[in-house]
Amino acid sequence: MPVFLPKGTRDFLPAQMRQRRKVIETVRSVFVAHGFEALETPAFERLETLTGKYGEEGDRLIYKILKRGEGGEKGESDLALRYDLTVPFARVLSMNADLRLPFKRFQMQPVWRADRPQKGRFREFWQCDVDIAGATSAAAEAEVLAVAVESLDALGFTQYSVLLNDRRILAALARELGVAERETSLLIALDKLDKIGKEGVSKELLARGFAVELPDRLWALLDVPSEQDAALDALEARLDEEGRAGVATLRQVLAYAVALGIPRARIAVAPTLARGLDYYTGPVYEVVVEDGGVGTIAAGGRYDRLIGLLSGREVPAVGIALGLERILAIMEDRGLFADLAPEVQVFVAVFAPELMEASLRVGAALRAASIPTEVYLGDRKFKAQLKEADARGARWLAIVGPDEAAAGILTLKDLKTGVQAAVSIDAAVSMIHGA
Amino acid sequence: MPVFLPKGTRDFLPAQMRQRRKVIETVRSVFVAHGFEALETPAFERLETLTGKYGEEGDRLIYKILKRGEGGEKGESDLALRYDLTVPFARVLSMNADLRLPFKRFQMQPVWRADRPQKGRFREFWQCDVDIAGATSAAAEAEVLAVAVESLDALGFTQYSVLLNDRRILAALARELGVAERETSLLIALDKLDKIGKEGVSKELLARGFAVELPDRLWALLDVPSEQDAALDALEARLDEEGRAGVATLRQVLAYAVALGIPRARIAVAPTLARGLDYYTGPVYEVVVEDGGVGTIAAGGRYDRLIGLLSGREVPAVGIALGLERILAIMEDRGLFADLAPEVQVFVAVFAPELMEASLRVGAALRAASIPTEVYLGDRKFKAQLKEADARGARWLAIVGPDEAAAGILTLKDLKTGVQAAVSIDAAVSMIHGA
Repeated sequence: MPVFLPKGTRDFLPAQMRQRRKVIETVRSVFVAHGFEALETPAFERLETLTGKYGEEGDRLIYKILKRGEGGEKGESDLALRYDLTVPFARVLSMNADLRLPFKRFQMQPVWRADRPQKGRFREFWQCDVDIAGATSAAAEAEVLAVAVESLDALGFTQYSVLLNDRRILAALARELGVAERETSLLIALDKLDKIGKEGVSKELLARGFAVELPDRLWALLDVPSEQDAALDALEARLDEEGRAGVATLRQVLAYAVALGIPRARIAVAPTLARGLDYYTGPVYEVVVEDGGVGTIAAGGRYDRLIGLLSGREVPAVGIALGLERILAIMEDRGLFADLAPEVQVFVAVFAPELMEASLRVGAALRAASIPTEVYLGDRKFKAQLKEADARGARWLAIVGPDEAAAGILTLKDLKTGVQAAVSIDAAVSMIHGA
Repeated sequence: MPVFLPKGTRDFLPAQMRQRRKVIETVRSVFVAHGFEALETPAFERLETLTGKYGEEGDRLIYKILKRGEGGEKGESDLALRYDLTVPFARVLSMNADLRLPFKRFQMQPVWRADRPQKGRFREFWQCDVDIAGATSAAAEAEVLAVAVESLDALGFTQYSVLLNDRRILAALARELGVAERETSLLIALDKLDKIGKEGVSKELLARGFAVELPDRLWALLDVPSEQDAALDALEARLDEEGRAGVATLRQVLAYAVALGIPRARIAVAPTLARGLDYYTGPVYEVVVEDGGVGTIAAGGRYDRLIGLLSGREVPAVGIALGLERILAIMEDRGLFADLAPEVQVFVAVFAPELMEASLRVGAALRAASIPTEVYLGDRKFKAQLKEADARGARWLAIVGPDEAAAGILTLKDLKTGVQAAVSIDAAVSMIHGA
């Protein structure tokens, strides 16, 4: 048996699982508090459900599953591993016409992409999507933003901002610049701003054949005050009616976001924000971590036509995806998991094999009092077990020697303070609960 | 886009997710209380890691993944979807020589088998394995049994038994009957006892070429009193030394199980219990639900050689697998999920679009008091929203009309009693927490 993993995949050992669970349960509790509900879909979909949905590059990165039996021997494929959570969501909406709208769902599951593995990029990784299907109100945008902000706050993030724009503003800018028919090309260049800077984007625009004076005109149009209302006022004055509709929506998103408790200072109107994907139809947003150059940790927008395109059922929708893997990496880098200890509180060392029964009884009694307790089941001598207690990270060590067993008590040692005492089960429970 | 699922797979919509989460979190808390830790492995493994591990039939049921690029065009495969949780566990043990033993892990993840789908059998289904690697003590068997019993108790099961046997007892029986070299054939027939009864097994034994007097001799040897000690005494008297070693281990398992709080009456010594898989080396056990013919909902045993065979690293091991999907099906059948409501407690109906901001503010205030609250984000008129509140299963309905908004209060209606009142946020929080 080859003792290695497929390239780009990971085992999650207990220490990693604790980190992942902390993040997943924390964000889940925020989702649930807002009335979002869980959805899970199968790991694989019919091949034709996925092909053609992610562009040519995407199609190449899809993991295809061989047919069983004869077809497989001929190399035929009929299934493919989930590539994202959006297409399965669209399929679910299409298959379940009786789902009440708005349908607010979150989905946290792995996806698979046969990408070149590199630092921080894996072939199996988790996505976390929070979407509202069937709502046209800007309150939907505000709510997914609130969910992201509350999630990050709950996880201990402090330095981050929400960048907010609207696709209609960008479209109006392109019209204002007289390059409406080349809007996509303009946006592709603009989307690189955070990576290559203004000068880089200007060069790229020229390379893309835009007029030599276009970059300066673009930067002038995009130059807005930092205060949100002033920024929106400035944009309003420069744009046509559709652009102004985008501005009006952003005013609503802002007002609703503040009503939901997002501090106004967290949000910046960012007319340069393009977002790569071309299916957005209204507001788009990113949550960016400010220091350390980590960049985007959550992003999304309104996509009122995508579900109809994918599934034939027209449903307006708004969503945000949290970058779970990136969030985990940042939290680990910053020591935000430092206090994450194993859940076991008491480690019962077994003094001698004939005291196993008495030790198990003590373990059961402590667990009955809601104290996670592990009884040592291995073959090591008593002394060596004390090291195991340390390695397991338990706060308390319990020992049931012959005298304790006879008296129905135990010796309990606080591994933090070094204090130990022979006590009854009840006294042990009080000490542990009281610590 | 074809709006259907691959055969044998399921979407889990919110109502199903609530059921699954209840079961998963309940059993998880039992595992953790015993010091078991979570492990997760990738959905796919290298193809050669899986092939040849599950027999010929198993190999046929493995989902293979096409190579990316050229190899894939030729129909070549290099990866395969996880078929069970045991082989990945063995691989993890083999790859992580620094893992401290005993390593007590649980793993709850989907597995995939290209089996013929039928009622209650799926191509994607979850397994839940609880194993202790690196322990030779019979306390390990007792602990995985305790974990299963406590899990079932916590889930609300009342009518079930633990059946206990040891492979060495069965081997000794075969020797006693003079058919040691055909032990496997004997066990295959015996394993069908619960499906085809004594007569059926007797017939099958004859069909398998055993002597005509063998069945009667077998039934006589297997006929033991129902009380555990008496059963073990009877077996002891009939078996050779290795068989008696099995009996001695079962005595220990029983004593430890009782020390861990399993009622003695839950456990039956069942010398007819064979367990299909041939990798068990010591105790084997099943947990069976008594009424309704549901059969086994958990099973396992000691497999001291399997990890060495799979991975080259010799590690004795004991485990139990809970039949998650079966447990879910039984619980649903029996109405054990009847009280599972959506987590949302308050549904805020939006009286008119211009009151959205005030409504969102009330929602945020209730959530800040740890009350899951959903504000209606859809386009329906106020009256129609009241139906939505019912459909969402929220206990409370909140309304912020123009007067309430002006006064900074809300109207709160208890949908259970029909009582409603205009109250402050603080008063609403008290009412809801107090209900």
